[in-house]
Amino acid sequence: MSRTPATLLPFARHALADLRAQAPLVQCITNSVVVNTTANALLAVGAAPAMVDIPEEAEEFAAAASGLLVNLGTPGAEHRAAMHAAVAGAGRAGTPWVLDPVAVGTLPVRTTLATALCAAGPTVIRGNASEILAVAGAGSGGRGVDATEDAESASGAAATLAARTGAVVAVSGPVDVLTDGRDTIRIHNGHPLLTRITGGGCALGAIIAAFTATDTDRLATTAAAVLTYTVAAEIAAERAGSPGGFAVALLDALSTVDGSDLAARAVLS
Amino acid sequence: MSRTPATLLPFARHALADLRAQAPLVQCITNSVVVNTTANALLAVGAAPAMVDIPEEAEEFAAAASGLLVNLGTPGAEHRAAMHAAVAGAGRAGTPWVLDPVAVGTLPVRTTLATALCAAGPTVIRGNASEILAVAGAGSGGRGVDATEDAESASGAAATLAARTGAVVAVSGPVDVLTDGRDTIRIHNGHPLLTRITGGGCALGAIIAAFTATDTDRLATTAAAVLTYTVAAEIAAERAGSPGGFAVALLDALSTVDGSDLAARAVLS
Amino acid sequence: MSRTPATLLPFARHALADLRAQAPLVQCITNSVVVNTTANALLAVGAAPAMVDIPEEAEEFAAAASGLLVNLGTPGAEHRAAMHAAVAGAGRAGTPWVLDPVAVGTLPVRTTLATALCAAGPTVIRGNASEILAVAGAGSGGRGVDATEDAESASGAAATLAARTGAVVAVSGPVDVLTDGRDTIRIHNGHPLLTRITGGGCALGAIIAAFTATDTDRLATTAAAVLTYTVAAEIAAERAGSPGGFAVALLDALSTVDGSDLAARAVLS
Repeated sequence: MSRTPATLLPFARHALADLRAQAPLVQCITNSVVVNTTANALLAVGAAPAMVDIPEEAEEFAAAASGLLVNLGTPGAEHRAAMHAAVAGAGRAGTPWVLDPVAVGTLPVRTTLATALCAAGPTVIRGNASEILAVAGAGSGGRGVDATEDAESASGAAATLAARTGAVVAVSGPVDVLTDGRDTIRIHNGHPLLTRITGGGCALGAIIAAFTATDTDRLATTAAAVLTYTVAAEIAAERAGSPGGFAVALLDALSTVDGSDLAARAVLS
Repeated sequence: MSRTPATLLPFARHALADLRAQAPLVQCITNSVVVNTTANALLAVGAAPAMVDIPEEAEEFAAAASGLLVNLGTPGAEHRAAMHAAVAGAGRAGTPWVLDPVAVGTLPVRTTLATALCAAGPTVIRGNASEILAVAGAGSGGRGVDATEDAESASGAAATLAARTGAVVAVSGPVDVLTDGRDTIRIHNGHPLLTRITGGGCALGAIIAAFTATDTDRLATTAAAVLTYTVAAEIAAERAGSPGGFAVALLDALSTVDGSDLAARAVLS
Repeated sequence: MSRTPATLLPFARHALADLRAQAPLVQCITNSVVVNTTANALLAVGAAPAMVDIPEEAEEFAAAASGLLVNLGTPGAEHRAAMHAAVAGAGRAGTPWVLDPVAVGTLPVRTTLATALCAAGPTVIRGNASEILAVAGAGSGGRGVDATEDAESASGAAATLAARTGAVVAVSGPVDVLTDGRDTIRIHNGHPLLTRITGGGCALGAIIAAFTATDTDRLATTAAAVLTYTVAAEIAAERAGSPGGFAVALLDALSTVDGSDLAARAVLS
């Protein structure tokens, strides 16, 4: 049991080391804006990205991959078909998968799609508070991709959503809130510059998918991923205080962040 | 009236401050090459990007957005349908929108598309001289995305195009030429490194769309956008003299450029 | 004849200078992950990228371009149609073209597509060992985009593939192996950081396409491209030792690498 703040840190250190030893293959069906950033973030942290995102290939690949990310940022028709195929392959093979319901709430295609994908049993659902409230049916969504509410405001909805879907729900914000419907972990790390670059949240979804390869405790592996990513963001922000340099430094920090950094910086509750 | 060099600088300073206070939501339907750069440029300058680019969502979103960019760089079928939908939504709601007719002239799909979109009443048309000449029917287009003629060579065609469409026309080049068919503004800022990175012009189109949220004087807001962007490019070029570093420094400079920088560097005529 | 190590270096120096003098127009139909990186790499080295990737425009453009890259990384239906159209245009006009068979082997769509494109007569085929083995029919492919075997392991298959297709075959790895089925060149330059960023191999495919404009000796121009790129990678790695900074420094190095750098660093056999 690694779900208390006291046990989570050693768990996360092991998970990060395991991830680098295994270099898990992570399939991503993600939006056009962040696809490059996401692949580079996975490579930097030590995983192996594979953006296999066409319907005819997605199912077979998902069945063989270590993890899968389904991100709804720019859900064109071919991507939507690929998402359904990939989720079917993941379900058949037991591949853990992460749903990132970008900007759901009022936009018609992605909101319907998010509902259907939630019913297919994601392993983890990651979003900002507006997105999680919308997926849980408790809010009307934000005005796009930026969070208009802090993560704590969605903690109740997140727990309800987790209980209903069986997924771990991770709400991103200044304090990240993670829950499986029973236990809740709060991670106080991170940096506001993550909201000044595109893909700051989307790349985290992919890294959560990578960490699922390291253990079957989904809440704990999600927490390990969020901790690794937000600590890397803190390190990056110390090196570069503007968004252009920060994006570069974040990749660098993801490639070097280690257990000592987690131990020195983790603030969990 | 802010259309003379003397009045434009204070107007631009106010517009930049207003943009940051408002963080306008800018919908972009843009090409796959620059979509990440464009989102990051909008975030850096202080706007909120939303790449809502599928036909089923584009119209509704455009009606609610503060501004819209339609960029023809990689005009796949789904994007083309989304562009028509978004322009309809923008027209219905009065959302200002920018047309960037990338590489029009000889290529069949985008040239026809640019003609149709021009007839739909863009607020601003931004391109290099070859593109503006082609859209105006006065040239045969360049050999792709790079300008083969300087902006001044298109100033007459730009004025004609502006008078015909009612749009402000912004011609990018070493000296940028902006006109609404009556008044013309020339902005002598910028740096050649903008032509050594992909998206140097495309991101400007998005930033022009963001500035439209700050005032209804379209020529003046376009000039404020071009001035902000080209001054940021100058600042970036002083920090990094090669294209990789320049692209990073440009995002940094967009996040920090302020009224004092504009005042210190603006060269308008 | 520039195919021996002794003659290749002066050939490569001339080819790089010629490329910069000509700024060849290189059409790319490439995957969504690396399209930005690829355009920036072409611009940095001195070529003119044009990502004309829709079926209705691809054939005409390929007939007029100096070179063409067809990369199978994310082969959606519209891109597949554009690839066939572009290859037809290139064949008709004699435009040299490069096939990059990303992740072929087990994935159904791209493997069939690679076979069909190979039959259409590419000028150069570039891939890692797993990909070349798969295209040659001698292997089952890797687990995605990362090479699971070193380039030398594919040298026999590469020579067979070259003889069968008439293409130069370039196998990327710690030592790059290039062959036209008769002569073989090994290039010992490069840096492991190229495998820690996405697009490290994909951008090379585009640069090979750019170098084809400089001479009709396809093996020699391919070697000149690989040498230029891998020497730039060495220079970049001396400036930045982590993947975020390396990607930036690689673009910078591509913009500055010159004949003296090639002479000082080339290790050919």
